[in-house]
Amino acid sequence: MAATIDLYVAGTPNGQRSVVALEEMGLAYNLHKFDLAKGDQKKPEYLAINPHGRIPCIVDRSGPQPITVTQSWAICLYLAEKSGKFLPKDPVGRMRVIEWMFHIATDVMALHSAHGALQRSAPDKSSANIAWAEDRVRDALAYLDRRLKGQDYFAGEISIADLAFYPVYNRRRGLAEENNMENLTRWGARMDARPACRRALEIVS
Amino acid sequence: MAATIDLYVAGTPNGQRSVVALEEMGLAYNLHKFDLAKGDQKKPEYLAINPHGRIPCIVDRSGPQPITVTQSWAICLYLAEKSGKFLPKDPVGRMRVIEWMFHIATDVMALHSAHGALQRSAPDKSSANIAWAEDRVRDALAYLDRRLKGQDYFAGEISIADLAFYPVYNRRRGLAEENNMENLTRWGARMDARPACRRALEIVS
Repeated sequence: MAATIDLYVAGTPNGQRSVVALEEMGLAYNLHKFDLAKGDQKKPEYLAINPHGRIPCIVDRSGPQPITVTQSWAICLYLAEKSGKFLPKDPVGRMRVIEWMFHIATDVMALHSAHGALQRSAPDKSSANIAWAEDRVRDALAYLDRRLKGQDYFAGEISIADLAFYPVYNRRRGLAEENNMENLTRWGARMDARPACRRALEIVS
Repeated sequence: MAATIDLYVAGTPNGQRSVVALEEMGLAYNLHKFDLAKGDQKKPEYLAINPHGRIPCIVDRSGPQPITVTQSWAICLYLAEKSGKFLPKDPVGRMRVIEWMFHIATDVMALHSAHGALQRSAPDKSSANIAWAEDRVRDALAYLDRRLKGQDYFAGEISIADLAFYPVYNRRRGLAEENNMENLTRWGARMDARPACRRALEIVS
């Protein structure tokens, strides 16, 4: 029988984030892998599901009415609430995780994306600007490294904040290692050791 | 009597976002206005509350244990859940709002911030790169404009997604107006007409 969740995805860190969540939570899903270079995400049948024409997106048909969720971080929150996993029930612990999600989704991801866009898409490939943008990513990772001092995960127990950051870490692990960010690289090794995390990166590589 | 919520804030769009939420929800709070240029946010007494040394941050002492929330978007979500306002209770409607929050917090804000940083902080003030970064902000606003066609707010009824975007719109309204983004500017006029929204921008200007 087909699973009740359909996942539309491709192998970007944002896409991988949703797969990490599904795999770690043990939720069954129908995998629809998109080829972004071919424009699968802009086809009318997909735009009818997600007018933004981006991945990832899930459609969950398990409830009284189907629910479509776009935005990888919203998908993570939705799946954590659905499964009851990786998000504490107590208000203080829950808010701590949500705070980390927003920190990574905004402060860290904005710098990660800005650096990538300056390298790939900016008209002027200014090496000074690219180096400056990389410094800003390094600073963001160094902050995570400091906060991970003496603790295994961002918000106490492992949470959706850790799972959601993992695909980005995977792209930036070189920067963490070169700069001797010991707490962050130890966190990375802890995540690497999780079969569901490794599997997710292979499913959409 | 002092309010149970302490707000630490300054007049940035991220700071204003938390004030818009508090004012719109009619929640009492003690206002602690920071002078970022003087480094108020890096003083030890504040770092003991928020080790990130950034604003905004709230401490709510109304519950059985005090709860500290940093990250403006997490604060908005927390206050919406606390007040029961601007966030639908039904799962589909609620997730629609959260999806819009993440869309604006990530896709829109990353481009807004990247453009600002290229103008102010990048070593190479490449005019080609600054124009390119502004084009990306324009594209992000144009997408919002298209999605607002035929509807008053982002997710049906007015929600925390609208409130949270308002301070950023206020900085970018020129771009929306110059480019004849009619749906978005109409949305802006609707928000401008709300006394609590206008008041918030004056409280931390």
